[in-house]
Amino acid sequence: MSSTIGDTVRLSVFGESHGEAIGCILSGLPAGEPLDREELLLQMSRRAPGRDKTATTRRESDQPDILSGLLEGRTTGAPLAMLIRNTSQRSGDYASLARLPRPGHADYTGHVRYHGFNDVRGGGHFSGRLTAPLVFAGAVCRQILKRRGVAVGGHIYAIADVADRPFDPVEVDAALLNQLAAVPFPLIDQEQEATMRERVEAARLDQDSVGGIVEVAACGLPAGLGSPMFDGIENKLSALFFGIPAVKGVEFGDGFGLASLRGSQANDPYACAGGRIVTLSNHNGGLLGGITNGMPLIARLAVKPTPSISQKQQTVDLVSGQEAELEIRGRHDPCIVPRAVPVAEAMLAFGLLDRMESERSWG
Amino acid sequence: MSSTIGDTVRLSVFGESHGEAIGCILSGLPAGEPLDREELLLQMSRRAPGRDKTATTRRESDQPDILSGLLEGRTTGAPLAMLIRNTSQRSGDYASLARLPRPGHADYTGHVRYHGFNDVRGGGHFSGRLTAPLVFAGAVCRQILKRRGVAVGGHIYAIADVADRPFDPVEVDAALLNQLAAVPFPLIDQEQEATMRERVEAARLDQDSVGGIVEVAACGLPAGLGSPMFDGIENKLSALFFGIPAVKGVEFGDGFGLASLRGSQANDPYACAGGRIVTLSNHNGGLLGGITNGMPLIARLAVKPTPSISQKQQTVDLVSGQEAELEIRGRHDPCIVPRAVPVAEAMLAFGLLDRMESERSWG
Amino acid sequence: MSSTIGDTVRLSVFGESHGEAIGCILSGLPAGEPLDREELLLQMSRRAPGRDKTATTRRESDQPDILSGLLEGRTTGAPLAMLIRNTSQRSGDYASLARLPRPGHADYTGHVRYHGFNDVRGGGHFSGRLTAPLVFAGAVCRQILKRRGVAVGGHIYAIADVADRPFDPVEVDAALLNQLAAVPFPLIDQEQEATMRERVEAARLDQDSVGGIVEVAACGLPAGLGSPMFDGIENKLSALFFGIPAVKGVEFGDGFGLASLRGSQANDPYACAGGRIVTLSNHNGGLLGGITNGMPLIARLAVKPTPSISQKQQTVDLVSGQEAELEIRGRHDPCIVPRAVPVAEAMLAFGLLDRMESERSWG
Amino acid sequence: MSSTIGDTVRLSVFGESHGEAIGCILSGLPAGEPLDREELLLQMSRRAPGRDKTATTRRESDQPDILSGLLEGRTTGAPLAMLIRNTSQRSGDYASLARLPRPGHADYTGHVRYHGFNDVRGGGHFSGRLTAPLVFAGAVCRQILKRRGVAVGGHIYAIADVADRPFDPVEVDAALLNQLAAVPFPLIDQEQEATMRERVEAARLDQDSVGGIVEVAACGLPAGLGSPMFDGIENKLSALFFGIPAVKGVEFGDGFGLASLRGSQANDPYACAGGRIVTLSNHNGGLLGGITNGMPLIARLAVKPTPSISQKQQTVDLVSGQEAELEIRGRHDPCIVPRAVPVAEAMLAFGLLDRMESERSWG
Repeated sequence: MSSTIGDTVRLSVFGESHGEAIGCILSGLPAGEPLDREELLLQMSRRAPGRDKTATTRRESDQPDILSGLLEGRTTGAPLAMLIRNTSQRSGDYASLARLPRPGHADYTGHVRYHGFNDVRGGGHFSGRLTAPLVFAGAVCRQILKRRGVAVGGHIYAIADVADRPFDPVEVDAALLNQLAAVPFPLIDQEQEATMRERVEAARLDQDSVGGIVEVAACGLPAGLGSPMFDGIENKLSALFFGIPAVKGVEFGDGFGLASLRGSQANDPYACAGGRIVTLSNHNGGLLGGITNGMPLIARLAVKPTPSISQKQQTVDLVSGQEAELEIRGRHDPCIVPRAVPVAEAMLAFGLLDRMESERSWG
Repeated sequence: MSSTIGDTVRLSVFGESHGEAIGCILSGLPAGEPLDREELLLQMSRRAPGRDKTATTRRESDQPDILSGLLEGRTTGAPLAMLIRNTSQRSGDYASLARLPRPGHADYTGHVRYHGFNDVRGGGHFSGRLTAPLVFAGAVCRQILKRRGVAVGGHIYAIADVADRPFDPVEVDAALLNQLAAVPFPLIDQEQEATMRERVEAARLDQDSVGGIVEVAACGLPAGLGSPMFDGIENKLSALFFGIPAVKGVEFGDGFGLASLRGSQANDPYACAGGRIVTLSNHNGGLLGGITNGMPLIARLAVKPTPSISQKQQTVDLVSGQEAELEIRGRHDPCIVPRAVPVAEAMLAFGLLDRMESERSWG
Repeated sequence: MSSTIGDTVRLSVFGESHGEAIGCILSGLPAGEPLDREELLLQMSRRAPGRDKTATTRRESDQPDILSGLLEGRTTGAPLAMLIRNTSQRSGDYASLARLPRPGHADYTGHVRYHGFNDVRGGGHFSGRLTAPLVFAGAVCRQILKRRGVAVGGHIYAIADVADRPFDPVEVDAALLNQLAAVPFPLIDQEQEATMRERVEAARLDQDSVGGIVEVAACGLPAGLGSPMFDGIENKLSALFFGIPAVKGVEFGDGFGLASLRGSQANDPYACAGGRIVTLSNHNGGLLGGITNGMPLIARLAVKPTPSISQKQQTVDLVSGQEAELEIRGRHDPCIVPRAVPVAEAMLAFGLLDRMESERSWG
Repeated sequence: MSSTIGDTVRLSVFGESHGEAIGCILSGLPAGEPLDREELLLQMSRRAPGRDKTATTRRESDQPDILSGLLEGRTTGAPLAMLIRNTSQRSGDYASLARLPRPGHADYTGHVRYHGFNDVRGGGHFSGRLTAPLVFAGAVCRQILKRRGVAVGGHIYAIADVADRPFDPVEVDAALLNQLAAVPFPLIDQEQEATMRERVEAARLDQDSVGGIVEVAACGLPAGLGSPMFDGIENKLSALFFGIPAVKGVEFGDGFGLASLRGSQANDPYACAGGRIVTLSNHNGGLLGGITNGMPLIARLAVKPTPSISQKQQTVDLVSGQEAELEIRGRHDPCIVPRAVPVAEAMLAFGLLDRMESERSWG
């Protein structure tokens, strides 16, 4: 079993970085939902490489070909299949990888898991390229959520040691989320962009890479979405977020910051506002007992530095069993955090729509 | 759907804090596994309240009654059902809760989710008391894992601002994990205990509570366990960890710490040691691409401060719709972090056994 | 994985025939549903042994103890756990079974599946006694369905070569279904009872048993319930029906009878009646493409003759590996078909409620 | 949720009869399995229309395009995606169908289920054309099973009132199963072919169609495969078999025939043969308690007559709500039973491989 998730809306992803194609099946969608193709392409372009001025090479067109489930621009209720043909299949760069696993990548673990039969070219099925179908699926779900009044968005919370301003967990709204989705380097505090780019450029010059943190939010959610224990929103979303390559941590609300708070600080007091029950603070990120309380949902994802770096690294030759040195060639992102933002949003949108379709009690 | 998890080994939990009983069904266990009842009770006692000298009141015996699936001390392969009768059913303390949701608890979200029909006494099905069946299930899995050479353990990584020494992610071994499991307040650096207890006591005197962080580890895992994308170890374990009440963040390896590292620091170099392939560092917590690499698996869980505090809090009367004040009476843990350690270990043990039973390729 | 089924409403069954208890967890139920305990007991008594005048011995009280998920007579939305203590634990009759597998039973296959660790007393987890929790679960679902206008019922379609009149697939209604549920030996044509009983008695006197066919129906279903291909009503119900011990065939509508019809006979023409779209015949049993069409749902289940017979049978000694003879002692039903009727109805009720809760499009 | 099935090996199907493409993702396959493309095409050709001399028109090439999961002819362990472009997209024949649902088809139920947004051209996602990916998936699984000593095959058990000889449930072997798979009209008793073809031709001349029964078998299965209650082989296979359009009944072993047997006839006595435990008869079709006993697995599927007939039929205009008459034009199979044989075999192969991969205890 692998690469499949969801309870009612289900996503099944296929493909390898250097294979013939990548794509997905998105099944269980509600019928009759119009899909705006331009909006789908826009979301996919946010993830595509070569978009940013700092990274000129290796452009991928990534034109999604919708093969089923759509008739006259609306979902039919049948499975929606999407295909992207791989055009750039340069596998020469990776020839030695089958013998020399790259540190920080899944080469070695995939080798053991699949007894050496896995496609190791470009990371194969483990490649970050597989996030293109994730963004596609999220972009479909996002359009449906929007018609239900739910907005989803995100920003670069941090790159290396440089932090953006966090979302105001009470005030964040659809306007801000939509605005962030329209820019290539989404930040709340634009003034951090230059410093962040400096960190990335410094790493690149050092043949190195940097990590960061992505913050995502959803507004307009009804209260009462989610279920106790293992079917809570945190459980479902974290299982999705950890499906994004390089994500090594997930937190909701104040997350790890809650560890050093007292209960009197972390408890969000209830109040009435405009006929609705709200909380005056939102340390819990809109979630209590795994269920939405109607406040903005806030999550953060730790993204490790791109493991593909050009520096000489120590590894082991899987054939000879001897220790060896490895130099990875080819073009690599010195920082994938900006491109991880739309992927994280996509997983959030998918997870929320699946919960809405799986539970009848929220409406 | 709710309160059920697992692919091959499945756990289904039931009960309410003040109902007749709590318990679980654990199905899909391998047959013929001997279960040591004393060891099961020992694990359950680690979670039980009133165990620590600092908390003398509200003792629960929590005797697990195994109803099926066990014959002459060995698993039969049929579902193993376990029951704990609730003896202390004082619900007077909670009489007003149906109207006045407690901040930080699931009272309000449960009310909306279940249209006011949820059992609100003591938190009902959302209560921390439901972690007793989790620990039971984990204790069963732990015994089976042990016979396969896998050890699971944990410690208090932090309470409030006081931190223990972290696990050495390369050197942590079964001996340390077993040793931590034998003490009531598990710490690597015992010298932190006094300060931590001071923080808890200070909060208690302030009618307040404190949060913290739990760190867990598993040693002896085979390489190659886990699957790509959504069936990775991180995905499966995070869905389990977030099933523990009060957990708001989960990270693996260096987790959020990876955000400020460079690739050259975060990538764990491979080497040969004693005929095995190892990594010289372990920033990735034993997991690459969602799959174990044979190094120790390391995870941390953020535990928010107990929401039950005696201070006056602001809430809303769900019947009148008016804002109101709330004072929670009754005995509460000013810090649940020590009791959360065995629960986190239990979810780790359950998740690892389920993966082992679900995948044939690791052995 | 075992003994668990359902997508949104989930059923997890535990217990062994001669163990301490049997029971189930029924999770994912809608909240706020009143449960009538007398009606639950009535349904369970329909399945209980010793109910019929022809079978005076081995009475079981089978009092279901509801442990959770119910508050003031209404479902809370949390998992509903039910327990029945086993009172009659005579295992002496079965002492040799661990060595001598009974033909037609699961003794041998269970032995291989569980490497000899399965509880073989009375069939253990494979016992027909495990249908008591199934009937309980179905009785809960039936009450909820009734409030939604859906009635479920069944009758003895055949015992040995004696057939009842089949349901009129167009005219069958709630009145008939409810009437059948009130009698111990449900038949449409009461005149067949005497002959059927003769067949059973003749078999009993020959130390033998007879099989039969159960027919079940549901009325009042909305059109549009079910999903294509593998999530159709037939797929979901057949997976449930084959969970009943001794069921070896399942058909919908005219079922195997359709094989010898022509399309012009089997196609059900559409017409308008009272503002609704109906079919004039119902050879498809209310299901087209796996989805309800609003006509009565009709299914039949083949029930093999009770494998427990007192005649001398040929088997193999699992310890010595030698061929051997076996005489099964103890009291056995010469025909389980009457008791299988409420079990089949229960699985139908559970399956339909699960589909209703899993799909939003039918309402 | 729809069109997805399997526990460890998972199949997700997409496409519409007149859409751009049909296909599937097959995930969870073991890695390193060589796939013989010629053998895949052979299996797919068995299902393809226009293969038989009696049906010359509407040939489809149905060339499967494998997009992922295969490297140098071997499975990689990553999801295997397959695509078939639709070449013949004549939708004119079906123009009025959106208004006039065809009796016996899913037009009406699909319309209600998807609120009128389903693709009704050629049956859309409900079309028998969707069985092409099923056969593909089964053909992959069949090759893997073969290397494990398991053979799968089937034959036309009956067309209309003309019956083939059934499988000898004890003696059926791989040689016979392989031989049946090599002929276009698989029969054990070749002498029935002429009469069966007469029945089909007579129906065709009457602008009508005929149904029939398919019988499938598997040999070489290990004993101990399957799990109790809802995870038994019958449960899993029936859920797959009912995914084949037009299947309305499924039985195992003697199935409905068991209803009129006595226990002394239906119980299969055990004996020793060549060091193995066997049964001397096989009325239970190789399955007891949902678990294989090592004897041949036997199942039969009732296939209703093709609902597409050219005779004038009565229906209802979904737009006007008035009763109406319908004449279906276009080319249709007067009997789909021969083409259903490889589809039934495919579902059998898929289901058995999934069980083998899901359970560790059979080996």
